[in-house]
Order: sequence, then C-alpha cells, then structure tokens
Amino acid sequence: MSKQHTLSELAELLNGSLHGDGDRTIESLASISNAAAVDLTYLDNRKFEEELKTTKACCVLVDREVKTPDSLNVIRVDQPLAAWAAILEIFHPRKRLFEEISPAAHIGNDVSIGEGVGVGPGAWIGDGASIQSQTEIYPGATVGPGTVIGEDCVIYPGAHIYHGCCIGNRVIIHSGVVIGSDGYGFAQVPSGDPAEPVMHKKVQQVGNVIIEDDVEIGANTTIDRAALDTTLIARGTKIDNQVVIGHNVQTGRHCLLVAQVGIAGSARLGNYVTLAGQVGVGGHLEVGDGAIVGGKGGVMRSLEGGNVYLGIPALPAITTKRIYAAMEKLPEYRRKISQLEKRIAELEERMGET
Amino acid sequence: MSKQHTLSELAELLNGSLHGDGDRTIESLASISNAAAVDLTYLDNRKFEEELKTTKACCVLVDREVKTPDSLNVIRVDQPLAAWAAILEIFHPRKRLFEEISPAAHIGNDVSIGEGVGVGPGAWIGDGASIQSQTEIYPGATVGPGTVIGEDCVIYPGAHIYHGCCIGNRVIIHSGVVIGSDGYGFAQVPSGDPAEPVMHKKVQQVGNVIIEDDVEIGANTTIDRAALDTTLIARGTKIDNQVVIGHNVQTGRHCLLVAQVGIAGSARLGNYVTLAGQVGVGGHLEVGDGAIVGGKGGVMRSLEGGNVYLGIPALPAITTKRIYAAMEKLPEYRRKISQLEKRIAELEERMGET
Amino acid sequence: MSKQHTLSELAELLNGSLHGDGDRTIESLASISNAAAVDLTYLDNRKFEEELKTTKACCVLVDREVKTPDSLNVIRVDQPLAAWAAILEIFHPRKRLFEEISPAAHIGNDVSIGEGVGVGPGAWIGDGASIQSQTEIYPGATVGPGTVIGEDCVIYPGAHIYHGCCIGNRVIIHSGVVIGSDGYGFAQVPSGDPAEPVMHKKVQQVGNVIIEDDVEIGANTTIDRAALDTTLIARGTKIDNQVVIGHNVQTGRHCLLVAQVGIAGSARLGNYVTLAGQVGVGGHLEVGDGAIVGGKGGVMRSLEGGNVYLGIPALPAITTKRIYAAMEKLPEYRRKISQLEKRIAELEERMGET
Repeated sequence: MSKQHTLSELAELLNGSLHGDGDRTIESLASISNAAAVDLTYLDNRKFEEELKTTKACCVLVDREVKTPDSLNVIRVDQPLAAWAAILEIFHPRKRLFEEISPAAHIGNDVSIGEGVGVGPGAWIGDGASIQSQTEIYPGATVGPGTVIGEDCVIYPGAHIYHGCCIGNRVIIHSGVVIGSDGYGFAQVPSGDPAEPVMHKKVQQVGNVIIEDDVEIGANTTIDRAALDTTLIARGTKIDNQVVIGHNVQTGRHCLLVAQVGIAGSARLGNYVTLAGQVGVGGHLEVGDGAIVGGKGGVMRSLEGGNVYLGIPALPAITTKRIYAAMEKLPEYRRKISQLEKRIAELEERMGET
Repeated sequence: MSKQHTLSELAELLNGSLHGDGDRTIESLASISNAAAVDLTYLDNRKFEEELKTTKACCVLVDREVKTPDSLNVIRVDQPLAAWAAILEIFHPRKRLFEEISPAAHIGNDVSIGEGVGVGPGAWIGDGASIQSQTEIYPGATVGPGTVIGEDCVIYPGAHIYHGCCIGNRVIIHSGVVIGSDGYGFAQVPSGDPAEPVMHKKVQQVGNVIIEDDVEIGANTTIDRAALDTTLIARGTKIDNQVVIGHNVQTGRHCLLVAQVGIAGSARLGNYVTLAGQVGVGGHLEVGDGAIVGGKGGVMRSLEGGNVYLGIPALPAITTKRIYAAMEKLPEYRRKISQLEKRIAELEERMGET
Repeated sequence: MSKQHTLSELAELLNGSLHGDGDRTIESLASISNAAAVDLTYLDNRKFEEELKTTKACCVLVDREVKTPDSLNVIRVDQPLAAWAAILEIFHPRKRLFEEISPAAHIGNDVSIGEGVGVGPGAWIGDGASIQSQTEIYPGATVGPGTVIGEDCVIYPGAHIYHGCCIGNRVIIHSGVVIGSDGYGFAQVPSGDPAEPVMHKKVQQVGNVIIEDDVEIGANTTIDRAALDTTLIARGTKIDNQVVIGHNVQTGRHCLLVAQVGIAGSARLGNYVTLAGQVGVGGHLEVGDGAIVGGKGGVMRSLEGGNVYLGIPALPAITTKRIYAAMEKLPEYRRKISQLEKRIAELEERMGET
C-alpha cells in the first residue's frame, strides 16, 4: 500500500480547507521542527506559532484562525490534534505482530480463544480464561485463570492480569502493568508474643477488577482487585505510567490519570476527572465530574466537580495560587511583623509618656 | 467441601455472641451494600453504620457496642475485621495453582527444591537457588542464582528476585516486584574529557536483601540490594504497591508501608512504623518505633517514635494541621499586615504632629 | 584467581599513600562497621569518622586529611569512594551468567547477534533486532522488532524494550524497566453520544527512544517513546528506580535522576542535572546545566542552571528554607497579627480621645 497522498486528498478527508498546492504529495509525517519537504506536520499549540515561519514541511495542519505565511501550504481544520490523530492512523496503521497462538505459548485448560487472536512465545494463559477475537498477547504477558479479555485488545510484554478479572474491548495494556493484585488490607490481631503484641493479619482480597471498553493503561501501572465487589475503571478512561489504583476504587468514564497518580482504596472519581502527575487521593474520598487536580496535589477531602484544584492539601487553584504567592513573601512578612511590633511598642511608649 | 455454615457454628467459631436465628445458613460473603439473603457481611467502620438499616445480608459481624436493628441477625465480636479475616479463610481458602515443576520451567543446576513446590511454565530458577517446601512460583517469575526462598511463599507472575537474596517463610510477592536490584551508588571521577570533566562511575553493589517471615510485598515495589551488608525487611512488615526501598535500608517489624512510599538509602525504621501513601524518607534518617507519617509527608529529619507526623517537611501532625489552617489564611494575613502598616503610619504621623 | 592482595599492592594500584603494615593481605571487602580482620573498608562520609576508632578492619581507605588512629592501617587517597569503586572491580569483577543463546530463548527472524552475546531462556528478541557483542539478556526480558542494543549491555529479567529503539554501549537496564511504551497523548473528539459528548482519541506515538552510552536505568523505571522524533537519555546519565520519563523528554549528559522522579512530556534537562527523589518536572519546561532539585520538589517553571532548588513550587533552596522556617512560625504570626490589631485599635482609640 502506497502511503503517498496529495494535499487535496488529505484536505477532503479531514474536512479541512486547503491553502496552497493541492497536487503536492505527502510521503511521511514529522514534527514541525524536524519536518522535511515530503512531510506533513501540524501545529496544535499556539506557543509554537513562530515555527510556522521556519518549518521545512510540505504542509501544516493548523486551526481555522492562526495566521500563516502565504508561501506555506496549510490545511485548516477545527482541531489540528484530532485531525493529526486521524492522519496517523492512515500513515501508521496498527501493525499486528502476533496473529496466531505461538507453539511456545503456555495455554491452560478450557481456554476460549477467539478468531484472529495472537499469543506470543512465553505468554501464559491460565485455565478457563477467555481471549476474544483479534486480541494480541505479547511474549511474557500472563492472564490468570478465569479472566476474560475482550476483542481487539493489545497486552504488551510482561503485563500481568490476575485471575477472575474482566477486560473490555479495544483496551491497551502496556508492559509491566499489573491488574488484579491483592488490595492492601490487614486486620490487627494479637500475636501471642509479648514483645510484639500485635501483628497484621491478611484480609483475603476476593473481589475482582473490571476494565471497561477503550481504556488505555500505561507501563507499570497497578490496579488492585477489590476486597469484595469490584475495582472499576470505566470506559474511555486513559491511565498513564506508574499509576496506583487501590482496591475498590471506581473511576468514572473518560478520566485522565497522569503518571504516578495514587488513588487510595474505595475512592470514587466522577466522569471526565483529570488528575495531573503525582497527585494523591485519600481513601473513601469522592472527586466530582470534570474536576481537575494540578500536579502533585494532595486530595485530603472530597472535591466538588467542575473546578480546578491545586496544592497539598488540594484547594481551589485560585486559592492555592494566592497561597503560593504569599508563601514566597513569608520571610518578608516575618520581618514586617517584627517591624510593626517595634513601631507599635514605640508608639505605646510615647503614648504612655503623654 | 460444602461452604455452608449455620450462624450458630460461625458464632462459636469466632467466639462471638449471636443475636438472631442460629439455624440460618451462610453460603457466601459479600460487602454490606451488595449482600444478598444468603450472605454474611461485616461492619468495621462506624462511618457506615447507616448501612445496617438497609443491608439485605443474612447476618452481619459487628463490634460489641454498635446498635443494630432488632430484625437483623448479627454476630458480635471484639474486632469485626479480624473476625472477617478468619471467615474469609474458611470460605476462600488459598487455592494452589502450581504443585509441581512445570516441564516448561527453566531450572538451573544444583537447585534445591522442597516438597510440594510448584513452578509454573516460563519461570526461571538460577543455579544453586533453593526453594523450600510448598512454595509456589508463577509463570514468568525469576529467582537469581544462590537465592533462598522459604516455605509456603507465593511468587506471582513476573516478580524478579536477583542473586544471593534470602526470602523467609510465608512471604507473598506480587507481580512486578523487583528484589535485589543494584542500589543507586556512584562515585564522581574525572572523565578525561575537558568538555565533560567528571562522570559517574558505578560503585558495584555487592550486598544482598533479606526479607523475613510473613512479609507481603505489593505489585511493582522495588527493594535494592545493599552496597555492602544487607537491606532488611523485618518480619511481619506489609508493603503496598510501587514502594521504593533503597540500598541498606532496614525496616523494623510489623511496619506498614503504603503505596508509592520512597525510602532513601541507609534509612532505618523502628517497629510498627506506618508510612502512608507517597511519603518520602531521606537517606540515613531514623524513624522511631510506632511513628506514623501521613500521606505525602516528606521526612527530612529523623523522627521520634510514638508520634503522628504530617507535611513537607514532616512535623508533628498537630503543628502541620495548624500550618495548613494558617496557610489558607495567608492571603488574608497579607492584607491585614498591609492594613496594619497603614494604620501605624497614620498613628505615627499624628503622633509626630502632637 | 586468588583475591588476596597486600596493602602495598593496593596502595600502589590506587596511587595512595599507605600508613601501616604493607605486608598484610586483604581477602574481602566489608562496610566499616561490619569489617573483620581480613577485610578492607573505606570511609567516605566524615559523619561516620568515629567509626575509625572501633572498626575491626584490616585497613581503611580514607581521604588525605582525616585524622586516623595510629594503630590503624590506612591508605590515603584523593577520593575514597572512587578508590573503593576501583577496588570493587578487582574483588567483584562482573560475572556473566549467559554467554550464548539459550535454546529456550525466543529469537525472531533476521536478528543480528554479536560475538559473545548471551540470551537467557524465555527471553524474546523480535524480528530484525540487533544485539551487539558481549551483551547479556536475562530470562524473561524482551526486545521489540528492529531495536538495536549496543555492546556490553546487561538487560535484567523482565525488562521490556519496545520496537525501534536504540540502546548504546555499556548500558545497564534493571528488571521491570519499560522503554519505548507509548507516550500519553490524546485528542479530544466528539463521541456522538450526547450523554458523554467528548472522548479521548489516541494519538499514535510513532517516535522512538534513544539511550546513549554508559547509562544505567533502575528497576521499574519507564521511558516512553516520542510522539514523533525521539525521547533521549544522553550519555552517562544514571536513573534510579521507578522514575517516569514522558514522551519527547531529553536529558542532558551525566544527569542523576533519583527514585520516583517524574518528568512530563517534552521537558529538557541540561547536563549534570540532579533531581532528588520524588521530584516532578512539568511538561515543556527546561532545567539548566548543573541544577539540583531537592527531594519532593515540584518544578513548575523553567529553572536556571547552577543553582539548588527546593519545594513545591521549586524555588531557590535558600528561599524555600526560609519559607519552611517561616511556615513553622505561621500559627505564631497569626497570633501576633491579632495582638497587633488589638494594640493598634487601642492606640487608635486613645488617639481619638486626645
């Protein structure tokens, strides 16, 4: 399949308006700063608008409003990043590596395998698991007994899904992800040893994990199984690398959980919640629909939806920004308070004299 | 084996007092909100006391004091969560998946294997390692040369234990855990290149890791081997997911290290220390017996035992809570200080006039 | 090979000056507190100088200036830790576990394998990959199609490198590391469902990762592939455990990234940057040559090189230390401001009276 497309074709495909030479052909894609004369690129972030003047790209996808040099071929679209995502699927369609069961894969008993499923060498599928059509399981990944994996999923090398979990359709699970490991639950019980009177007894974790359709889970993220019931990642939610999801957590739909976020047990997120990098959410708390928590935020109380929060503890961003500004002045306040004390003492003394 | 038990049987077993119909039978376990008429459940957290009025459970394990509806079967016990943990072991006894050495496992030379050991397909055991009786090693896990693993352990898929380490009895190691990787140690040495005058030379890490009995280690946690000597996790300590333990760290017994905690090299924890999620402890510091550090805390000085700490830097919780309260008022202080300055200037001016 | 060396030999080798009995022989290495009469040890940190009085070591590597007991054999060198690193290589030379391709390894088509390469059982090498001479790939590690790995590397069990990446020479990659996983990039597009009007559409990540020579990457660290172009770890940089490197990040040479650091997409570090544990760096920011950010710091603006930074947000350390000191006094300021208000009100009243 040739990957050459003329600018006219691409503009039509994207429902965009072309300014420039429609007969030029695009052979490949590149970033705006690295693009060469056969490349298509895009500009999504106005911060980098200056690059339009220097790019060597054949053509740039831009929004409807931005000013562009006359000499530059551009395709104007409503949302350049969305158009770019569509273009990527044309130039870089998903390549399947495994389309059948490798003889070196370890497949248990009573495993149900759909049409077109690929399982790489060294992967392990436990007894009674079900892998639905077109799903691809890379080498070294493992799927526990009784776990169901939907259609068109990709399970990358060394991802591990424990027993009895449920993964939806079109779910992407990157390397090192662990799903269904035991939640962190212990009961303090007497140990019988006077020197160490109590010990932590494991509370067996007998719930499961459900991942709904169209979820993506980044490398080395962990999602614990529920103590009872279910830990739920609702459909369309995208999870970055090294996120920790505790037992019995429920996320809403279409959430964005950025790298190193930690969500403690039984917390609940509404739909369209965004947690930026390194945010922590305390156990049993609720974060409302559409709430956004800025990087490193520490959520210590439940948060209402629709607002932006920041800081430790996480407060409305406008408050935290004021606090940050005031914090930088703290040493100055300290001095000012001392000066005020002196000035008042002086006044008081003089007043005493009068 | 039938899993049906009458309430009378269960009450006796738990040393609890039954209020209700002792002949009713329990078939399964469920959470208080999801329980059906054949289910046993429990109430451990008084916050959810209201659920007692609406639960459909056959019977609830409760503490000795809580008020319960007359019509509800309850078993009163001293510690509902501990009783629940005991019940779980009856209804959900540990199921062993692997009870022998898979022909597809990769076993090195001079490996010592105890009675009843199970090793799954694709697991690797290095030369001279020793796996003691009843321990189960899942597919894709690896055990380095010379490492000793005690009795009754479970090593989940894709856990990796390097050479020369020592794991006790009844230790549970979840997927993605790495034990015995090199500590982070480098010496600055001249590079010979004037443009980059110094470089970081690796200091070989030749110590090991010892994990004592009854430790559990959550998914994707890493525990580095000591530079020299030993990194030690003392008995009964429970570690959550994605915790980082640096080289030469020593934890006390029965510590609780919650998800995403990071403990820098050579730090020492006493017994019964609790570090909540995302806490960081600086290198070479000491945290005393029974100390508790709240979520996201940054331990920058050694902490005495027996207290609760919070914040960055971690201070006694009562202090940090006052600071947090004051921080929210900071922008207000700022205004107040400006107003005071004006008022004093005015007074000074008037005093000057008199 | 005998590992016995006389003190004279070692002093000469290290270009050090020996004080004591040059004929004594060293059989092994130990820490200063655990050393026995046949051991060599070292003192790098003056904090532990007292240990010189009680150590049972045969000899201690020390700096040129520190005072030592007359009866103790010492070798004085310019940098004890660097000398120690050299000594470790003599007493603990790298042991190779795998020197050939295991018949139980899974090797794809058109793979290029250099001289002396070792690949353990259960490892997977994708089609068209290239593994250069003397490199060792442990069991359960995977190398994606087309990826190139240089000479003398060690890839530990369960490390996963995706397709099309480039790893330099003498690179050490610990267990659980993931290199080349997809960056976190999504475009908001209409979903067609009025109840959930927008959804996150994956932006295919078609760049790669380049790791230059002499880099070490700690357990469970993840380095995402670029959206376009390259995510770059420049030569000599040492990365600790559980670090997150986002897509299109570029680090300089000889950086130190301590455990649980997170660097968001497109951020750039200069040369010799040190980020201490749990530091976060925001997307698209720049950190200048030689900058140091203290533990838990939150980098929210670009930072100039050559300085030390601390806090959330990260400010010059001297500022943050003043802020921390002032924060501890905050509740006191609160009281003081109230008192000042009262005293001024009193003065104002009295002034009104005059």
